[in-house]
Amino acid sequence: MLLRKIFFISRNSIEHSERARVYPCARAKPKNKKSEKIMPEKLAESRKKLVDMGKDLVKQIDKEENPAMDVPVRALSNVNYSEKTKMLSLGTKSSKRFFFNVAHVRKFVQTAEIAALAKELLTVDKTLSLRQAFYAIRRTIPGTNIDTVSEQEESNKAIEDLELITGLAREQLHINANKNGSIAGNAIVKTKGLGGREILIDLSKMGSGGWSIPSNVEDLEFKKIDAKFILYMEKAAMWERLNEDGVWDKLNCIIISSQGQATRGIRRLLQRLSIEEKMPIYILTDFDPWGFYIYSVIKTGSISLAHASERLAMPSARFLGLTADDIEKFQLKKHLIKFKDVDLKRIDEISKYPWFKDKKEWQQQFQLMKQMKGKVELDALVSRGISFVSEKYLPEKFKTKDFLD
Amino acid sequence: MLLRKIFFISRNSIEHSERARVYPCARAKPKNKKSEKIMPEKLAESRKKLVDMGKDLVKQIDKEENPAMDVPVRALSNVNYSEKTKMLSLGTKSSKRFFFNVAHVRKFVQTAEIAALAKELLTVDKTLSLRQAFYAIRRTIPGTNIDTVSEQEESNKAIEDLELITGLAREQLHINANKNGSIAGNAIVKTKGLGGREILIDLSKMGSGGWSIPSNVEDLEFKKIDAKFILYMEKAAMWERLNEDGVWDKLNCIIISSQGQATRGIRRLLQRLSIEEKMPIYILTDFDPWGFYIYSVIKTGSISLAHASERLAMPSARFLGLTADDIEKFQLKKHLIKFKDVDLKRIDEISKYPWFKDKKEWQQQFQLMKQMKGKVELDALVSRGISFVSEKYLPEKFKTKDFLD
Repeated sequence: MLLRKIFFISRNSIEHSERARVYPCARAKPKNKKSEKIMPEKLAESRKKLVDMGKDLVKQIDKEENPAMDVPVRALSNVNYSEKTKMLSLGTKSSKRFFFNVAHVRKFVQTAEIAALAKELLTVDKTLSLRQAFYAIRRTIPGTNIDTVSEQEESNKAIEDLELITGLAREQLHINANKNGSIAGNAIVKTKGLGGREILIDLSKMGSGGWSIPSNVEDLEFKKIDAKFILYMEKAAMWERLNEDGVWDKLNCIIISSQGQATRGIRRLLQRLSIEEKMPIYILTDFDPWGFYIYSVIKTGSISLAHASERLAMPSARFLGLTADDIEKFQLKKHLIKFKDVDLKRIDEISKYPWFKDKKEWQQQFQLMKQMKGKVELDALVSRGISFVSEKYLPEKFKTKDFLD
Repeated sequence: MLLRKIFFISRNSIEHSERARVYPCARAKPKNKKSEKIMPEKLAESRKKLVDMGKDLVKQIDKEENPAMDVPVRALSNVNYSEKTKMLSLGTKSSKRFFFNVAHVRKFVQTAEIAALAKELLTVDKTLSLRQAFYAIRRTIPGTNIDTVSEQEESNKAIEDLELITGLAREQLHINANKNGSIAGNAIVKTKGLGGREILIDLSKMGSGGWSIPSNVEDLEFKKIDAKFILYMEKAAMWERLNEDGVWDKLNCIIISSQGQATRGIRRLLQRLSIEEKMPIYILTDFDPWGFYIYSVIKTGSISLAHASERLAMPSARFLGLTADDIEKFQLKKHLIKFKDVDLKRIDEISKYPWFKDKKEWQQQFQLMKQMKGKVELDALVSRGISFVSEKYLPEKFKTKDFLD
């Protein structure tokens, strides 16, 4: 019993003794008293994993064992590229994290704190951002001057660990990445409106703005998709150009942009459209190593999120340009922006990625990029005419099936 | 006639001799052959100003004068704060820019190029981003090795000059700033759908994502507003929290967020709601000098965009928090993030702004901020409960009319 007491003094939220005070709103107003019964299946499933994790810890304590969690190792040495799935993924190495271990206890408690918070979020069907989750679990452990977390970096890491332990993505734990990006096209999605009630969004009737993509797309349902493919671009300005030109209507597609690098929410949305709806995904980027890298991450996954590839990567994505040939064909050489050394180094690095290494057409692109010694931005297509990209570039690309895989 | 020839060799797009080739799309397909007749009034009005500017230049040339433009001076020395309008604005100083002047000719030509582009954009009713506008006017002047523009900085400056010369905002010239931000609430807006046809957006039926705010809100019309006020916050994560909690429904308001600093599009949207629709605007920011600065810019304008205050500033905007009192009242001191020297310096600078300087309650905030020696983020309210901000903080603020002006 002493073990149980020690454990609960420092980790007092697994059974909510403390949290009940800290979270008056969440505790006082669960969305529905029979929430477990009416809760959508996915939510209930995720919640059960967290409850099981808690029960497992309590069982260990009751047996007077040193409470422990199995945490898969997140290190380059445990990241593999599979020729079969065409994705980066995490290997099978894992390590045990103990409560009674001075080197482990802090991370142990933080992971348990996040697990308790995620269980609550799923119970009341609410979400928080990474920053908000940090504040939600931050407090001084009673009778000490020790904070559960001091920096957001700690709660972020605990969230990643919990993803690995439970096999649930951060978004399934109801903790969100940044909100970003717009979408328009011939499709209808179902999402949550007021009070969690279902609402249908017709993406062809969103006008000049488009629908704003939520940070968490787990509960989106694709009700009706007339579009034949997806066009993703990084820059919102290009998205506005295509939207104004009605490209999604003329080519019967869905256009999606972030503003800057694709967030997890956008990658997940693309992936769900690719895997669940079997939609072809086409990527538009600048002609430079960073553009090629964006394509690479969307298609294959990234090292830092290798454990999430199955929920984020889509091996069938294709690259629509800009390519070296586009630059030649559309006389864009005038708009070359000279590379710096760091860019040239990056070309070498990326060209050696396993999924680029043996592909002749990609190696040729890298070769030409090195010869050109400069980047060309997608926006440079405007030098050929305001709507050149919509009226000439894209239709021709699709007509001649001119894309890289 | 020689003068005319010299002018048109270097600035050959005012009458589109060159542009006709460069912009096949724009020239070949004006939206409607009778575009001038069916063009919405605002568009036609803006276009007329540009045509008049061109005609004026041609008249000067025909009279064999040295072509010149009057450009208001954009410098701190010409920026004033008006106690009457409660806004920053540009003074009356202006300078003449001549074509036959080695120091002036480059800027002269760039401004004329942008004017010609803007006229085209208005004619075909399309928009471009700043970056795209740079590419659109960039070319080598025939018979020379001189580019019209080499860096985007040049076209940006030319656009600002054209704003000053014509009195038209960049967005009225159909050149857009960044697209960013989401909106939801009890209101219906009219915007452009496919082929420029009108489309209604019900902002109360946008679900988890909200409507994505276009970069250019000039042609938005507010068809029906049931909401009583506007709540603006910088961070999309807080917007998602409020949207999930249905705050806009419970408090009958409209919630708007950017992701990072408010773009021109968002400021203009807030301003139009404030001025045209007489909607009260409330601003939520972190408790730190940068948060207070965000409020200051939205309310009063900024020095760098002083010429655009009339289209961007809204003197009736109010500050809803976080305040020093909130931090005390809601026990958020635990979440203080220590200031650096640069932050402390910033407090001193901002507290001396004319619109803060004589206000006792603001000076008290600055004083307390200096005593606390740290910032507190809005997100820290989550430490009091997942929905504390929605269920307690905001309702109480409005009930007790607890805001700063």
